[in-house]
Amino acid sequence: MLRQSSATLTIRASRPGLHEFTAEVREFVGSGGVSEGLLTLFCRHTSASLLIQENAAPAARRDLETYFARVAPEGGPYEHDDEGPDDMPAHLRSALTATQLSIPLQGGRLALGTWQGIFLFEHRKGTPERSIAVHLIGE
Amino acid sequence: MLRQSSATLTIRASRPGLHEFTAEVREFVGSGGVSEGLLTLFCRHTSASLLIQENAAPAARRDLETYFARVAPEGGPYEHDDEGPDDMPAHLRSALTATQLSIPLQGGRLALGTWQGIFLFEHRKGTPERSIAVHLIGE
Amino acid sequence: MLRQSSATLTIRASRPGLHEFTAEVREFVGSGGVSEGLLTLFCRHTSASLLIQENAAPAARRDLETYFARVAPEGGPYEHDDEGPDDMPAHLRSALTATQLSIPLQGGRLALGTWQGIFLFEHRKGTPERSIAVHLIGE
Repeated sequence: MLRQSSATLTIRASRPGLHEFTAEVREFVGSGGVSEGLLTLFCRHTSASLLIQENAAPAARRDLETYFARVAPEGGPYEHDDEGPDDMPAHLRSALTATQLSIPLQGGRLALGTWQGIFLFEHRKGTPERSIAVHLIGE
Repeated sequence: MLRQSSATLTIRASRPGLHEFTAEVREFVGSGGVSEGLLTLFCRHTSASLLIQENAAPAARRDLETYFARVAPEGGPYEHDDEGPDDMPAHLRSALTATQLSIPLQGGRLALGTWQGIFLFEHRKGTPERSIAVHLIGE
Repeated sequence: MLRQSSATLTIRASRPGLHEFTAEVREFVGSGGVSEGLLTLFCRHTSASLLIQENAAPAARRDLETYFARVAPEGGPYEHDDEGPDDMPAHLRSALTATQLSIPLQGGRLALGTWQGIFLFEHRKGTPERSIAVHLIGE
């Protein structure tokens, strides 16, 4: 019998960069009583985003952060800087990555590959937590 | 009781750039009789794309348009230019942003953050409207 | 009556670049007995990704490959190169494109536009096949 559930996860992001929250997602999935289905994560912000990436190598995370800091740099010049120099680069880095991710659930487990983790990509300073809407459908 | 519905939205995009269509999506959601679920939008084109972005500041929209015009410029050089100089940049800008977005529906409302709007990102000139496939599942 | 099914597709990618697998996805959809619903594809790797793109023009594919090779080049410099010079660029190109795609199913057909194909974007050398988790829900 198909059913669904939803929630809002609050993820702490004490500094800009990649913050893994695979464990929080697994905890939500584990509580849902669903073993086959589809999980969706939606970042409720335009200055933070989602990324599935390598969860083993901290150097890969640092290279990702460096790369996006370079291709969408502070000091653009940008017309929009209402909230400071990290405002517009945050929107650009969000646009280049993902606001939403859906992951199949198979045999009670997220269908993540061996080295895949789920990350919040925080693009701003001084935003201590972020809100991720979560939806699960399955049986 | 779970149910689903689908439709095709036609979005007018009289000029290249970002066109908000959050209101059209809300209208479809409002007619579906579903208050908890998952909404999916799919852009049926390879030279236009979807973006969740800041809906309050026109300057942020202009900066986004300027940025993608710079990182995937006309006059590449590109091998593919069957339909003119804005042909290949349109494919690149689509590849860098999103073809599809799914948004949870909670308490009868899309789980968008306060400042989030849903945009069609038109990358070509002379394409007066675009077709977005919409799917809603929930209860 | 809503129902769901899932599978894992194995896609051969003998060389880096774009590999269309629309036919394999259609075959899975055709076997599911579902004509209205939502199909989700999830790439179980951090060095390959998914892309909906032009399926008619090989030149557009070559331009896409050239573009991503240029914006996320080998020889960065990168801190992370455990698996060689194509390791970190593969993660960056994955981050810039899509790990997951959902496509509505309408009237028994994927809601793809006329020129849209589904591609695996292989970013590494020497990875002969890739694993794509697939989920279908509908009726």
